[in-house]
Amino acid sequence: MRRNLFEAEHDDFRESVRRFLEKEVVPQQAAWDAAGIVPRDLFAQAGSHGFLGFAVPEEFGGGGIRDFRFNVVLNEEIQRAGVASACLGLTLQTDVTLPYYLDLANAEQQARWLPGIASGTLITAVAMTEPGIGSDLAGMSTTAVRDGDHYVVNGAKTFITNGINSDLVITAVKTDPSKRHDGISLLVIERGMPGFERGRNLDKLGLHGQDTAELSFIDVRVPVANLLGEEGTGFSQLVTNLPQERLGIATAALAGATAAFDLTLEYVKERKAFGKPIGSFQNSKFVLAELATEIAIGQQYLDNCVTAHNAGELSAAEASMAKWWCTELQGRAVDKGVQLHGGYGYMSEYPITRAYADARITRIYGGTTEIMKEVVGRSLGL
Amino acid sequence: MRRNLFEAEHDDFRESVRRFLEKEVVPQQAAWDAAGIVPRDLFAQAGSHGFLGFAVPEEFGGGGIRDFRFNVVLNEEIQRAGVASACLGLTLQTDVTLPYYLDLANAEQQARWLPGIASGTLITAVAMTEPGIGSDLAGMSTTAVRDGDHYVVNGAKTFITNGINSDLVITAVKTDPSKRHDGISLLVIERGMPGFERGRNLDKLGLHGQDTAELSFIDVRVPVANLLGEEGTGFSQLVTNLPQERLGIATAALAGATAAFDLTLEYVKERKAFGKPIGSFQNSKFVLAELATEIAIGQQYLDNCVTAHNAGELSAAEASMAKWWCTELQGRAVDKGVQLHGGYGYMSEYPITRAYADARITRIYGGTTEIMKEVVGRSLGL
Amino acid sequence: MRRNLFEAEHDDFRESVRRFLEKEVVPQQAAWDAAGIVPRDLFAQAGSHGFLGFAVPEEFGGGGIRDFRFNVVLNEEIQRAGVASACLGLTLQTDVTLPYYLDLANAEQQARWLPGIASGTLITAVAMTEPGIGSDLAGMSTTAVRDGDHYVVNGAKTFITNGINSDLVITAVKTDPSKRHDGISLLVIERGMPGFERGRNLDKLGLHGQDTAELSFIDVRVPVANLLGEEGTGFSQLVTNLPQERLGIATAALAGATAAFDLTLEYVKERKAFGKPIGSFQNSKFVLAELATEIAIGQQYLDNCVTAHNAGELSAAEASMAKWWCTELQGRAVDKGVQLHGGYGYMSEYPITRAYADARITRIYGGTTEIMKEVVGRSLGL
Amino acid sequence: MRRNLFEAEHDDFRESVRRFLEKEVVPQQAAWDAAGIVPRDLFAQAGSHGFLGFAVPEEFGGGGIRDFRFNVVLNEEIQRAGVASACLGLTLQTDVTLPYYLDLANAEQQARWLPGIASGTLITAVAMTEPGIGSDLAGMSTTAVRDGDHYVVNGAKTFITNGINSDLVITAVKTDPSKRHDGISLLVIERGMPGFERGRNLDKLGLHGQDTAELSFIDVRVPVANLLGEEGTGFSQLVTNLPQERLGIATAALAGATAAFDLTLEYVKERKAFGKPIGSFQNSKFVLAELATEIAIGQQYLDNCVTAHNAGELSAAEASMAKWWCTELQGRAVDKGVQLHGGYGYMSEYPITRAYADARITRIYGGTTEIMKEVVGRSLGL
Repeated sequence: MRRNLFEAEHDDFRESVRRFLEKEVVPQQAAWDAAGIVPRDLFAQAGSHGFLGFAVPEEFGGGGIRDFRFNVVLNEEIQRAGVASACLGLTLQTDVTLPYYLDLANAEQQARWLPGIASGTLITAVAMTEPGIGSDLAGMSTTAVRDGDHYVVNGAKTFITNGINSDLVITAVKTDPSKRHDGISLLVIERGMPGFERGRNLDKLGLHGQDTAELSFIDVRVPVANLLGEEGTGFSQLVTNLPQERLGIATAALAGATAAFDLTLEYVKERKAFGKPIGSFQNSKFVLAELATEIAIGQQYLDNCVTAHNAGELSAAEASMAKWWCTELQGRAVDKGVQLHGGYGYMSEYPITRAYADARITRIYGGTTEIMKEVVGRSLGL
Repeated sequence: MRRNLFEAEHDDFRESVRRFLEKEVVPQQAAWDAAGIVPRDLFAQAGSHGFLGFAVPEEFGGGGIRDFRFNVVLNEEIQRAGVASACLGLTLQTDVTLPYYLDLANAEQQARWLPGIASGTLITAVAMTEPGIGSDLAGMSTTAVRDGDHYVVNGAKTFITNGINSDLVITAVKTDPSKRHDGISLLVIERGMPGFERGRNLDKLGLHGQDTAELSFIDVRVPVANLLGEEGTGFSQLVTNLPQERLGIATAALAGATAAFDLTLEYVKERKAFGKPIGSFQNSKFVLAELATEIAIGQQYLDNCVTAHNAGELSAAEASMAKWWCTELQGRAVDKGVQLHGGYGYMSEYPITRAYADARITRIYGGTTEIMKEVVGRSLGL
Repeated sequence: MRRNLFEAEHDDFRESVRRFLEKEVVPQQAAWDAAGIVPRDLFAQAGSHGFLGFAVPEEFGGGGIRDFRFNVVLNEEIQRAGVASACLGLTLQTDVTLPYYLDLANAEQQARWLPGIASGTLITAVAMTEPGIGSDLAGMSTTAVRDGDHYVVNGAKTFITNGINSDLVITAVKTDPSKRHDGISLLVIERGMPGFERGRNLDKLGLHGQDTAELSFIDVRVPVANLLGEEGTGFSQLVTNLPQERLGIATAALAGATAAFDLTLEYVKERKAFGKPIGSFQNSKFVLAELATEIAIGQQYLDNCVTAHNAGELSAAEASMAKWWCTELQGRAVDKGVQLHGGYGYMSEYPITRAYADARITRIYGGTTEIMKEVVGRSLGL
Repeated sequence: MRRNLFEAEHDDFRESVRRFLEKEVVPQQAAWDAAGIVPRDLFAQAGSHGFLGFAVPEEFGGGGIRDFRFNVVLNEEIQRAGVASACLGLTLQTDVTLPYYLDLANAEQQARWLPGIASGTLITAVAMTEPGIGSDLAGMSTTAVRDGDHYVVNGAKTFITNGINSDLVITAVKTDPSKRHDGISLLVIERGMPGFERGRNLDKLGLHGQDTAELSFIDVRVPVANLLGEEGTGFSQLVTNLPQERLGIATAALAGATAAFDLTLEYVKERKAFGKPIGSFQNSKFVLAELATEIAIGQQYLDNCVTAHNAGELSAAEASMAKWWCTELQGRAVDKGVQLHGGYGYMSEYPITRAYADARITRIYGGTTEIMKEVVGRSLGL
């Protein structure tokens, strides 16, 4: 069924992203995967093409259009090109961190940071999760104690995307440890602040080009001017931004499922066994028909979610539905894709194999499938 | 997420259908289930309210608006009221048989039949399936041999909805047994034609109020004037009408899943075990969250299918996707609904129990899930 | 793989049961289903062949051999013959109620009741579940207040198998309402005791020949001599007997799955579509290969469970594993069996259709799948 | 339920294997994974402990006991220790290649090769699969043309376990290209034969310490004395050995599932969220209860398969059932294990993460799940 989501400007943007990825990213992906990180310059390049700052006001060097359809295009093209591993850090910025700067930062902060974010010279991250603390944010133990014009921050965060490359880290801290949710605030901690150390780049199952790290904070003095929003409102800010983050993950997941499906469909048409294409066996045909159906169904839902989100009407439960269902679909798509590739599906040189490894995290990050079902369940009054 | 499918006139129609079902059908459902059939008068009543002929041209007593959204409303309200068993025969008419009369019948035939169809005084059926022949239509053996102004029909059909009540039966016959698909034609065989006999009303797992029967034809002389469309085009006519039939089944299935979900959600909120509502157990919550998600996702897809169908753009594969996915979802919804009802879910007096029994056929009729996947698979080039 | 469970005496018993079912039960099944109950004489007939009392001591007219393999044979043959609906009441006696009389009844009670139980002239039932109370036994509200040599019983029970036919009903009552588990005792309430009334025979999705009813007790005076075991030990007695009950259900379920598989395998070999047996389509082949595998795997586990049970070594968790897994397998087997039968799978005259309806309760009664998983989970220390 | 498979000698063997793995393998695993290969010396060490040659006749330095239970112990301990990646090459030898030497090799060949195989100084491999040819052995294109006392071999093989380390490669060749199955013979091609080249060590999703490679043969002159069995009987020999290979894979898979389960159970008991162990959430509990059940059920089946195999009674279909079901279970176990580990489940330092990556191949190698279902389906007459 035709998608009605996009207009001409999105198609142009898509064309531009596609050319960029093919020219600048695809040829480097293997090297960056081996290195475990992308060069900082990738952000600057992406920024120069307008891929990072389309939602940033024009006065700060951005495109000035807050329209999640551009985010969708970026995510879709990254998945289509098979370069999630290299580009997760980019969409982290557009889908997850940027809204904090647009919605919470005051004028001084915006002037200070948005130009660099839009141009890709300031790389961002967000640090919520702590070692041993997954989805239970209120249980965090990183503290920020007010001392004059500064907060003194102590604690550790883990699983931080752009952990090594980031310049600005929105960090959830307890400014009032006596409270649970209401004691949380958001501080922007900057590269080079004394006491802010990065752990090693973590070795992961997939997403090898993506730097994921632990961060530690020992008596880091952070100016009060780096507080995002009001003190004590951090939790509600995080919660406010979760639907967009989850919608972004869902979008990438569905595009990833589509890419895995396309790879596999092509493979089963070409590869022969017992004298005929393996796609002509009924089991292969049914597996692909099932995936095609689920992708088609998910796409219509997701496109409608994007429209609702642009209108400010996407609920937390709807975003959670999109997140868990699309990432689980992606999980099935890459798993069945590997299976239909046979032995080749286990060889890292095959895109489906890397897709399999890359995909495993999407059911976990941004809120696990189980947390998503909790959110949906609560919306039902359960 | 808000559904954008309907306009004010559909809401009015929904209100009207709902009142009718509550007043005229719900109180009779149990009696009709026990009888194994609905009274013919149900059709006349429905016709008098305009529920059967909204797509029939006004000159023949209809509403003159061919808009599948009215079909959707009718299907949804029937499922919501839990009266699929009584009303399947009505939607068979609006979703399945009527298009043949609107698109294939010539002027004389339309004048002869459409007024009765719209008013509900002529009850219709379509007879494709033969004993021992399921989805393989080309293998049918009912023959129609031309003899002057008549065809002489011999053969048998089975699983015919409205099998007992029907007045007009669109019957697929082989007018040229030497051919497979191209030898099939459609004849309207009428109640009372000598040699046209109905077998017993079949005892089914569910849908007890729906009369399903075998039909037999022994030397039935059918006037050539009852031929629908051109001789030899029957197969392509059947194929042309399948997407709407399947979209109708998908619509009813999704509405059925929604009704089962609603019943169950209400039940688990009220029913207690170990001192708290069973809906508060995480397993119950997750099961319902999963169903809620799938229903929400399916609804957006289906609504977009309806829009595409109204625009003449729904493909056979898209309709097949909708059909298998929504009926399988319905299957899960009623199964999990029964399970969460515990022992009560096995008692026929509970709506969820009847819904379970009624739903089992939707994955089979109108093309099994397996046939749907074949259709989708072929559309992928497999 | 060869089953090593049985010896010659079990084979003889099997032969005897098989002949009996074919001669006395199969021809009556449809009539009894229509009646909603079997004649009391069925129990007497079964008793006269030794099918009810093989575990009863010889002095009371039984076979004197407590060997669950005979129970297995009885269950397997009933499923094989497709007469679960008629014979559930028999295995309720051999698998569920008899152990109470053998293990808890005192000498006087045994002399009073066991001869009738073995001969089939006393039909038994067990009444635990109450309206609105499912698996949470401790929450029951039926009370038994001591009054001299009697208990005065008030309350209601529901979903009672053999509810209409039963003469002796082991009834869980609260003799001390101030306690939860420790306040429960077991009383044998007998047909004809004033104030003991039976509600209507409940209309169920399947198992139509099986009488299931509500029982009500209004000031029923039950002699203290009818107390089974010690006062206040009822809950632990129920718990003690659950593994055998669940093993029996698992056995019947696996045999039911096997029967459904056999019916379907035969059908897909004979039935043709598109010019070849539908079993030759890869999807059908895979579905049946999956079922064959799961049945084979389940059978070895279950046979080992039976050996362990005979040795007194079957744990509650092991029985729960068998119960949930085998009944869920049965659910898949009948569902896929119906699907592969196409439209015929919805017609009550087909055994697979009745098997589908009959099977739906096994995932619920004797402890739902969810309760079983709780039991297993607790055994893991969770 | 107690396993009855093993006797004291197996327990001793297990103890010995366990100590060896803990001392010699576990500490090296990470280094060998990084290297992509194990040192040849690992085989010699294993051989010196009797882990490779227990089935080899004593005259050739082996243990002289052909009892698959020793193979089971070896597989189970390897999985328990989490060192599949290092030790797959060892069990390839005991489970897969050795039977060819024991059953097909003539006296001269046995004297030449078995001592080295038992001692671990001759490392073995088997080469069936060709690039582009998966399960369709008869379609292979590697040829062996007789030229005097030699065969001249040309062709290529891929996905060869022990591809780099192997000294002796049982290679399936077409000695008569005009025939399909009957044209296949088995030649032992030895390290150092001119024209026998190894491709690069393939980069895989998991099993990083295992060397997997392509082999190429260009005019390799192989003495006729290296022919295993009769010319033209290669296919039937391969088929004869498949059940043991598949039983071995099933054993490793079930042990792998058990190990993943154990890791996860321990994790969910320790890790807390929202103030309580995550294992106490009902969803976690149910997931683990399901896995525990399936593992218990699979274990009893598999143990009975081993007994049957030792008695020479395991059918191809039974081995195929074990293979697909146990590897699919392993797939579920590692997937759910990763999920319950949350973000940690994506970090390679966690055993569950490596188990996830290692496990993905077991549903593919030794015959995919789909091929297994074909084998089972054919055994049903479909």
